[in-house]
Amino acid sequence: MKNFEYCNPVQVFFGKGETDRVGEVCARLGKKVLFVYGGGSIKRNGLYARVMERLREQNLTVWEVSGIQPNPRIDKVREGVKLCKDHGIEVVLAVGGGSVLDSAKIIAAGATYSGDPWDFFIDKAPVTGRIKIVTVLTLAATGSEMNHNAVISNDETKEKLAVVDAHIYPDVSILDPENTLTVPRDQTVNGIVDMTAHVFEQYFHPTPETPLQDRLSEGILQTIIEYTPRLLSNLEDYDARATIMWCGTLALNHLIEAGVEGDWATHRIEHELSAFYDIPHGAGLAIVFPQWMQYVLDVIPHKFAQFAERVWKIPRNGRSDRELGLLGIEATKKWFSQIGAPVTLREVGIGEEHFPVMAERATKKGPLGSVKKLYKDDVLAILRMCR
Amino acid sequence: MKNFEYCNPVQVFFGKGETDRVGEVCARLGKKVLFVYGGGSIKRNGLYARVMERLREQNLTVWEVSGIQPNPRIDKVREGVKLCKDHGIEVVLAVGGGSVLDSAKIIAAGATYSGDPWDFFIDKAPVTGRIKIVTVLTLAATGSEMNHNAVISNDETKEKLAVVDAHIYPDVSILDPENTLTVPRDQTVNGIVDMTAHVFEQYFHPTPETPLQDRLSEGILQTIIEYTPRLLSNLEDYDARATIMWCGTLALNHLIEAGVEGDWATHRIEHELSAFYDIPHGAGLAIVFPQWMQYVLDVIPHKFAQFAERVWKIPRNGRSDRELGLLGIEATKKWFSQIGAPVTLREVGIGEEHFPVMAERATKKGPLGSVKKLYKDDVLAILRMCR
Repeated sequence: MKNFEYCNPVQVFFGKGETDRVGEVCARLGKKVLFVYGGGSIKRNGLYARVMERLREQNLTVWEVSGIQPNPRIDKVREGVKLCKDHGIEVVLAVGGGSVLDSAKIIAAGATYSGDPWDFFIDKAPVTGRIKIVTVLTLAATGSEMNHNAVISNDETKEKLAVVDAHIYPDVSILDPENTLTVPRDQTVNGIVDMTAHVFEQYFHPTPETPLQDRLSEGILQTIIEYTPRLLSNLEDYDARATIMWCGTLALNHLIEAGVEGDWATHRIEHELSAFYDIPHGAGLAIVFPQWMQYVLDVIPHKFAQFAERVWKIPRNGRSDRELGLLGIEATKKWFSQIGAPVTLREVGIGEEHFPVMAERATKKGPLGSVKKLYKDDVLAILRMCR
Repeated sequence: MKNFEYCNPVQVFFGKGETDRVGEVCARLGKKVLFVYGGGSIKRNGLYARVMERLREQNLTVWEVSGIQPNPRIDKVREGVKLCKDHGIEVVLAVGGGSVLDSAKIIAAGATYSGDPWDFFIDKAPVTGRIKIVTVLTLAATGSEMNHNAVISNDETKEKLAVVDAHIYPDVSILDPENTLTVPRDQTVNGIVDMTAHVFEQYFHPTPETPLQDRLSEGILQTIIEYTPRLLSNLEDYDARATIMWCGTLALNHLIEAGVEGDWATHRIEHELSAFYDIPHGAGLAIVFPQWMQYVLDVIPHKFAQFAERVWKIPRNGRSDRELGLLGIEATKKWFSQIGAPVTLREVGIGEEHFPVMAERATKKGPLGSVKKLYKDDVLAILRMCR
């Protein structure tokens, strides 16, 4: 186990009906609120009206930024930052999935910074402060509700980059599984792939002696694998939605990576795919992850064998670590496919024309990953395996 | 899963050498420090001198309360509170195990309260504030380093009572496994039993649909069971100490109980034993827990069966839940015995003369537990099973 620092100050309110706390929660933090959301789904399902009512009951003044897209764009963040600065807004309230939450985090940070918020992503300026952040999650996927990450895309530069900074933990996150009951099947699946991939990034690592971290990760994976078929057979199953939601949060709230050196190469490679092609992040991860696993199998075969035995319950039966690990990787790919995720680039209509530039850009700041350092040629090789 | 609120703001510094942060950490929070510790062990092993040096480097003014005992007494807390009030102390620094940490938490809360700190335990006054709390853990056991609990004994009234309040989370906890390398075998075992019992209290519960919480609890238990023999075969094994330390913290930092209704009857019964006889808390838990399990088995046989299969790897082989559960309970009792914990009251020299009054007192505020409501006669029956 490596030395680590851990502090996660997010206040979580989890469960049926917790959405109605949103007014009092925001009022505790300020009088002027920027309500950030995505497309029309929260208007169609009544969540927009419900949140607005709770805010009005508390006599809060509300501004809005709407139209946040998947793979959220820096333009919308700039729009939010301007509103915050112009009106002295005190609280950014995000109602949506990871894209909306990530946008809100950077809006809140940008509101106290004199320059352009894209500066945070290109290491031109550190995050040094923010206004308050409250979230109401409507999609179980990114873990943004309880972590200090934000990923934003820039259309001009075709970049999709991350800020990881302790300042951008939300103050309060409301996790009401009922708000996810209407998420369509494909988005539900993408979210499940995303949280699964988050666990993988922190489970397949080179750090020795991390038995508790391993068990916690395996527990999250086993729960996701057990509850996904149940959820997909009835998208309105509250208990399944609640379980998957809490899995998504714990998959990336920095707990399971405490003491380990996570890999994250796959995410970096996927970011190039969704920056170039705007495919759903979850879809890209389902395609890249099994190929990355195959590519690095021989570096930590014992870990892949443990994964096969404990998570997929594949018996040892005299197999070598490598053989067993390979079966675990095949089981993973098969499972992604079974739940309806793509596992080849062909399935999402991506050809190989941009592979070299994507490999170049992914490794621009240096090699990727902790399990095996991946250089440009390695990334290119993995992309080719994804065809 | 039940609705829940979760927020754990403790900043943890974990790992080898992190002890040396203690000076800067305290200096960040105040200039006047009350250094709280137990017997002479930290003087003998050099930790006292090391901490003092770090505090002096930061030019902090230090007062001391020493001699905190296992099953810590309210008298020592009162002594600390008086020093804090007399000198305007800003930070309570606890260096020790759960007893020292619990004492420090109540000293810090008492420092901002005009009355007697025992009032917090007898519901005479709520905790409404505190001065800063920093801890350096030297014994993996209670989880006090990352939770909002404190248990204190009162010799006059022969009571051992708990305060559970969000105000008493430490600000910063330094978890340096090297500080536990010299813990003797018997204390190491008591600590391991204590953390195991904490998981049991939150794992055996009546709440349906808690698959993720179950897996996390099982992961902690499996890790403890795997690493305990290794640690007991070499008490100076750093990686084993580190693993057990992190298990102890996660066993009771309120994460695994998020969404479940924990039981805690066994702890309440044990508190009567250690209030009357001053036996180590861990020893009392090893004696009571298997008997409590047996007593409530028929209420949640499926959970005991799951426990036997997943934690003890006992195969189903056509057994009923009850039969399988019973084997799991037997395995638990046998394991406690194997690692050197007592499993009968006879082994610790306790007779049955005080059973009626202990049962009476344990249930004074109402029946115990969530799995099965335990009244006076139930507690009496369990105590008799412990003979």
